[in-house]
Amino acid sequence: MKAAILCVGTELLFGQTVNTNATYISRQLQLLGFDVLYHHVVGDNPSRLERLIEICFEDCDLVITTGGLGPTEDDLTKEVIAKALGDELVYDEASLASMKKYFVETHRKMTENNLKQALFPSRGKVFKNAVGTAPGFVSEKDGKYIIALPGPPREMMTMFDNEVMPYLSERENAVLYYKIVRTYGIGESILETVLMPLIHGQTDPTIATYAKEGECSIRVTSKRETIDESKSAVEEMMVKIREIIGEHIYSEDDEEMAEVLVRELRERKLQLSSAESCTGGLFAGKITDVPGASNVYRRGYVTYSIESKVEDLGVDQAIIDKYSVVSSEVAKEMAIKALEKSGSDLAVSVTGIAGPSDEGDVPAGRIFMGMSWRDIDGRVKTTFKLMDSGRHDRRKNREYAVLAMIDMVRKNIQNCSKK
Amino acid sequence: MKAAILCVGTELLFGQTVNTNATYISRQLQLLGFDVLYHHVVGDNPSRLERLIEICFEDCDLVITTGGLGPTEDDLTKEVIAKALGDELVYDEASLASMKKYFVETHRKMTENNLKQALFPSRGKVFKNAVGTAPGFVSEKDGKYIIALPGPPREMMTMFDNEVMPYLSERENAVLYYKIVRTYGIGESILETVLMPLIHGQTDPTIATYAKEGECSIRVTSKRETIDESKSAVEEMMVKIREIIGEHIYSEDDEEMAEVLVRELRERKLQLSSAESCTGGLFAGKITDVPGASNVYRRGYVTYSIESKVEDLGVDQAIIDKYSVVSSEVAKEMAIKALEKSGSDLAVSVTGIAGPSDEGDVPAGRIFMGMSWRDIDGRVKTTFKLMDSGRHDRRKNREYAVLAMIDMVRKNIQNCSKK
Repeated sequence: MKAAILCVGTELLFGQTVNTNATYISRQLQLLGFDVLYHHVVGDNPSRLERLIEICFEDCDLVITTGGLGPTEDDLTKEVIAKALGDELVYDEASLASMKKYFVETHRKMTENNLKQALFPSRGKVFKNAVGTAPGFVSEKDGKYIIALPGPPREMMTMFDNEVMPYLSERENAVLYYKIVRTYGIGESILETVLMPLIHGQTDPTIATYAKEGECSIRVTSKRETIDESKSAVEEMMVKIREIIGEHIYSEDDEEMAEVLVRELRERKLQLSSAESCTGGLFAGKITDVPGASNVYRRGYVTYSIESKVEDLGVDQAIIDKYSVVSSEVAKEMAIKALEKSGSDLAVSVTGIAGPSDEGDVPAGRIFMGMSWRDIDGRVKTTFKLMDSGRHDRRKNREYAVLAMIDMVRKNIQNCSKK
Repeated sequence: MKAAILCVGTELLFGQTVNTNATYISRQLQLLGFDVLYHHVVGDNPSRLERLIEICFEDCDLVITTGGLGPTEDDLTKEVIAKALGDELVYDEASLASMKKYFVETHRKMTENNLKQALFPSRGKVFKNAVGTAPGFVSEKDGKYIIALPGPPREMMTMFDNEVMPYLSERENAVLYYKIVRTYGIGESILETVLMPLIHGQTDPTIATYAKEGECSIRVTSKRETIDESKSAVEEMMVKIREIIGEHIYSEDDEEMAEVLVRELRERKLQLSSAESCTGGLFAGKITDVPGASNVYRRGYVTYSIESKVEDLGVDQAIIDKYSVVSSEVAKEMAIKALEKSGSDLAVSVTGIAGPSDEGDVPAGRIFMGMSWRDIDGRVKTTFKLMDSGRHDRRKNREYAVLAMIDMVRKNIQNCSKK
């Protein structure tokens, strides 16, 4: 079934409130196997609202509205829906009784306009509001449904979960399943190019790619009669995707790369430390974002200046003088010293120019990452990586360097032995 | 003028992403004096997109789209807009050249589909993308405008502020001027309450408050015939605002608190270092986000574990044993040791439970911040601050602690002497 979400509320059009209702309902409808074709937002204007309902019904079988169910004069959703369905509003006795009871219990005076909240289209079913006063409802005409929900997110979500979910589940016979695959080290356009044979002419499962900061995600979605059929359709497609870009996949469960690294370190009982120059603590910050990071990350050094690389870490000034501070040699030396000093099993380092300006003849975006660990015989090993982004964007250079550091550790982790 | 916002993106319809773009654009259009009548969201479907453009133009003079400007096959916004305006797409030589330059500079391979990003409707004006690859544009037909912006929020916002604001302002007869005032340490509802006498019945200038992560902003806007008139109206209002909440204002120029702190440290030629436990490098990361931070921040310690507090900083184990690691005493001791060890003029520290879980009898969100500096006679001084948030939200606890640390340093800075 195809669906549209129609939110009524001037506070959305003024930009005072973010439309989290549409996001929530979309997610829930997806789980139920609906295709959501539209979100619309409109103010307290009956003719625009009516027009949008008409437009929704050109493509969709289900329209879910939020907002405009309250007692005040500009709450017009019910009137407009009744008109659009060629119906009229009548009092629902049960709602009227429970509303009167509510006002008595809360020692509040019921005003005339509160009565409005017990009016509903004559054909349909009332949904109880467990956490507020305005009930919702569903109404139907010629196989098209409108479900009207209150605007306050908590009332809307509670009603959706308690009343709408069971109502709609009964009416669907396809089940959706999807996987979000996260990749690193491959751009969106290249990703799409190599996956094109799978994407092209796709019907089910579908494949969509999304660019994120410094990485790309792929969503593989199937909608079949049973959850098992959907799952195995996605799994079959995953086999093909892994064949093509397997080396770039770091999670098939929509995890952050830092989460994956912390888990892998925990599994191997390895401890990591870091020595950061241009990222200035962001790597440590990213790793310690993950709950439970204290099991694998015990300490780090923000060696932003040359003297701190020498004094705090013990990097040999002669190496800096010989190769310059932005060099693979210094990056590796920083990692070795961090390994020694911290007593951890592996250490990662970074030195470079974040920008926005070049520094002397070193361009912004030239960043060396170093890593140091012990092999199975206890020998200290190192590697390095150069990111020469050419970018003058300080934020991106720093964030992308952190991702590159995490990726470097992740890819070398199987070579690391416990101290 | 009446406007509609039309966002293209399946990730919105899937409920993966909240539509913050529509909120941002609504707010900005309001400042410019536009009435926003609709938000629409549609997927990568050309016929639905075209239909919505038609519908928008029934009521509106301006349609702003976001998304679908990228290089991949499902990025169709430009094609559809050209068709809707009876126009065709042609290559923009300047965009083509700058794109080629970007790919050379960033050492990336330009694929065939990237060329698409240099195609634009033949009638119109290209908007530069300062922080990404896909430019935007405005195109016009019979007094109706379409402005197309990229989907990633940062790119969209930057383009809106740098390109769209000036473009639309020119078309209005009034000149808009606004100030964004940033405050810390006062909640949005209290802020609104104390400013209510100024907000109530406002016509020009207008005052709007916005809650951000851990802080609040106030936007004061005036739109008069000349820029001088708008400016002095805003300035007059600022005098009143400063009288009421002056102590909470840390910037009248929409700066980050870290920016303000780095500037103040530079002006006083003071050097800062840090010793972080539960924020795990985020404070250092925040300070070094600011270009030129290397003048005031030379080094820091991520002392995530107890042994690193003792071994790397030199905190006395006895103090930890006596007061426990999450205590004002340990926070102050960490700051004193960081001051000694780093040779800087002031040092800040943090120790606490970020969450999500409590640890033993210490609740998540209990975080002590310490600070150490030398007074005019060279005596070492300390102070501390407790944030007992009661929150189990790890991210918020960490980010709010970083803000509280910056605020603590900023408020004590006038007591600090150079070593």
